[in-house]
Amino acid sequence: MDRIVECVPNFSEGRDASVVARLVEAVEAVPGALVLGTHVDTDHNRSVITFVAPPETVVEAAVRVVARASELIDLSRHAGQHPRMGATDVLPFIPVRGVSVEECVALAHEAGGRIWRELQVPVYFYESAAMRPERRNLADVRRGGFELLREQIAGVPERAPDVGEARLHPTAGACIVGVRPLLIAYNVTLKTSDLAIARRIARTVRERDGGLLHLKALGFELESRGVVQVSMNLTSYERTNLHQAFEAVRREAERLGVEVIASEVVGLVPQSALDRAAAHFLQLENYSPDIVLENRIAAALERKKGDGGGNVSA
Amino acid sequence: MDRIVECVPNFSEGRDASVVARLVEAVEAVPGALVLGTHVDTDHNRSVITFVAPPETVVEAAVRVVARASELIDLSRHAGQHPRMGATDVLPFIPVRGVSVEECVALAHEAGGRIWRELQVPVYFYESAAMRPERRNLADVRRGGFELLREQIAGVPERAPDVGEARLHPTAGACIVGVRPLLIAYNVTLKTSDLAIARRIARTVRERDGGLLHLKALGFELESRGVVQVSMNLTSYERTNLHQAFEAVRREAERLGVEVIASEVVGLVPQSALDRAAAHFLQLENYSPDIVLENRIAAALERKKGDGGGNVSA
Repeated sequence: MDRIVECVPNFSEGRDASVVARLVEAVEAVPGALVLGTHVDTDHNRSVITFVAPPETVVEAAVRVVARASELIDLSRHAGQHPRMGATDVLPFIPVRGVSVEECVALAHEAGGRIWRELQVPVYFYESAAMRPERRNLADVRRGGFELLREQIAGVPERAPDVGEARLHPTAGACIVGVRPLLIAYNVTLKTSDLAIARRIARTVRERDGGLLHLKALGFELESRGVVQVSMNLTSYERTNLHQAFEAVRREAERLGVEVIASEVVGLVPQSALDRAAAHFLQLENYSPDIVLENRIAAALERKKGDGGGNVSA
Repeated sequence: MDRIVECVPNFSEGRDASVVARLVEAVEAVPGALVLGTHVDTDHNRSVITFVAPPETVVEAAVRVVARASELIDLSRHAGQHPRMGATDVLPFIPVRGVSVEECVALAHEAGGRIWRELQVPVYFYESAAMRPERRNLADVRRGGFELLREQIAGVPERAPDVGEARLHPTAGACIVGVRPLLIAYNVTLKTSDLAIARRIARTVRERDGGLLHLKALGFELESRGVVQVSMNLTSYERTNLHQAFEAVRREAERLGVEVIASEVVGLVPQSALDRAAAHFLQLENYSPDIVLENRIAAALERKKGDGGGNVSA
């Protein structure tokens, strides 16, 4: 796949595995759509499917899975701590390769239009797909959840959906569709049980407090291990990379007399983020994806396909 | 491709680009064979084609390119400094993925048999494919080149080929077929013009003098840049990785008061060598190829193919 959009729908069902399996089926029935993983959270009664597809079929896959969720999940009977307002609660589109944010916004808007027309589920757009500035932040859109929105949707103008009539679907609620960047979730573990140190390092390294651009960070305790962690989100890993986040934490920890034990990626990491880290630490002056054997094989394969299989008469 | 063999034939023609182009065509005409690159050396009048293929077709591609070279290259008219004894001088098979050394040896022997039977070019086997211990080392097999072998092949029993009659092909000479490991050629550049320092570091880090296993190293001057380089070959990069070689050089340089300026990969590097380096320096405790987005996509694609495209009726 040359052009890849990732889609990570969140569903309000995390206890019935057969429902999640049928949602996965709905995605994989669409040509080009590939499920990379599912995460089922029984505590929050919520599940997440991560899939990728080319821009040509990602909307179809997204609409089909939203349709399947609205058949299978009854939000009016749903219980769970996590704020939610739809059977498919959030539907983010993420540009991964060869696709711009603007193209993803167009895809998100197309999906939103179809979700209303085909399923009568009203749609709110968030983050890069937001149509109103006050809806950029997902938490603001979702405040009060299904129950509050049910009371307000018809009467409170600022709670009206971006697409569709001002009434919730009786069982599927509403759907929040958006475009967000590819995140890397990355934690660095420190050899101390002092939470204040993790918090202090988090403040030093994060953008909000004058640290690295595109880096969010918080300090957490890992009680089971008796240590603390700086938990980070890299929101633009091509500009602020893994190794920069790691080095910033390591330097600050060193200054405070604390050792770094390890780091971990939560979820998935793009190959280029690891490659850049390797090139950085090895001081590799001639790094390019082109020196990697597997990439050269993939490129040769593409080239040969383009030639129609080469000169078979030779 | 799940199973990959690399093949890197060396040809005694580095001046006529049309010959090299026709050799490339011969390889690419074989299903599954992919040319990754060519290197043409006019000084040595020699060229190298790097290609990969699955074990099922690599022998066919190898034999076809040797056949094409024996049509196009006349060794009796060839001039060049580099020792050589065939139109296709050396034909190494290299296990890259999902193929053992033993399987590659069987492929090399199959190719050698065909080269004699189909082309009447006598064959010598070297390195892991060697049939006599004194032929493991390529330089020993090739000593004296085409001209000396022409005098000795019939009369000197220890120069008889491993396959074929004891007479050279009149224009294509002989062919040396072997199996060698995947090498990473890796240089580290130092901020000094003192060649003695590069040589001293090379001696410290290489296996031969008690350093790292599977590591060969030499010191060189880079006259144009006024600096020196430790030039290395990693002959088993899964056991002694790039980052271990880099760190060994850096530590020894530091001890001698010399700075590392940069490093460079010569040719290609397997993805896993870069990944291991990234994981090492980032202290990434949960690294596995499975956390890489692109690998997950490839795996999902394979799985979906295996399902026959998923449940299309959904």
